[in-house]
Amino acid sequence: MVDTISPENVSGFVVGEGCFYVEFGKDGKYKSKVRVRPAFVIELAADDESVLQAIKKIIGCGTVYNLDFGRYQTYKDKKWKKHVRYKVSNISDIGTKVVPFFEKYPLFGKKQQAFELFKSVVQKVLDKEHLNDEGLKNISKIVNQLRVVNKRGV
Amino acid sequence: MVDTISPENVSGFVVGEGCFYVEFGKDGKYKSKVRVRPAFVIELAADDESVLQAIKKIIGCGTVYNLDFGRYQTYKDKKWKKHVRYKVSNISDIGTKVVPFFEKYPLFGKKQQAFELFKSVVQKVLDKEHLNDEGLKNISKIVNQLRVVNKRGV
Repeated sequence: MVDTISPENVSGFVVGEGCFYVEFGKDGKYKSKVRVRPAFVIELAADDESVLQAIKKIIGCGTVYNLDFGRYQTYKDKKWKKHVRYKVSNISDIGTKVVPFFEKYPLFGKKQQAFELFKSVVQKVLDKEHLNDEGLKNISKIVNQLRVVNKRGV
Repeated sequence: MVDTISPENVSGFVVGEGCFYVEFGKDGKYKSKVRVRPAFVIELAADDESVLQAIKKIIGCGTVYNLDFGRYQTYKDKKWKKHVRYKVSNISDIGTKVVPFFEKYPLFGKKQQAFELFKSVVQKVLDKEHLNDEGLKNISKIVNQLRVVNKRGV
């Protein structure tokens, strides 16, 4: 499968199926008491797992795992099928692999807008701006803009 | 927008967002009393209409139209947004433009399986096989396989 998918196929696919978001909120586990964690995910029906494995190989990071638990059990009657998810949340992988990939093979439409907002949060986190109050406030504003772009109905 | 989307972007996007199907059933309007109409569609939130306009230009056929009527009115409370659809159902356009496009810029995953089934129906319709009983029976079998591949949960 990986031989038949090109990087430009991946960016086209991600425009439809990918999601760039930021986990943002209070979390005592962190020194700063705030979790600011950019993540990139694609979730598909489990029978297309090979597509996610190919994308993982092309982008060069992330993990693919099954979602055949919890909420899906109760959806059996509704004919929901098992899902599989590709996720990158390691900030170093996002900064050195995910962001450069989509700069080289650009997205388009609303997803490109989402990516630009995501990218600016990633840069601020890499610059440790989330560790001071003003930086955190700036990041929070961008995260809210990103939520608006991501939640556009459908 | 059309300048920034490559044909390989289109095929990647269509793996996630496109649908190849066949309208198949009794219809007195047709000489054969059966409608066998292959169609290729992509439906998006209306704020991404420019993506569909670009794809229309790249593939070189089809129409883009709004779906801001009927069923959407009742969904206002559910925060559904207006949708826009790209559709190609002209059999000549499908045979000379859509099919060759996705042969040149291949799909992948389950969508590739759907496309192969779709393509074989298109060829049979172009060969007028839908105008005799045996041909129609063969097409019906493939249409059912295509329905199974298209309806796989999610």
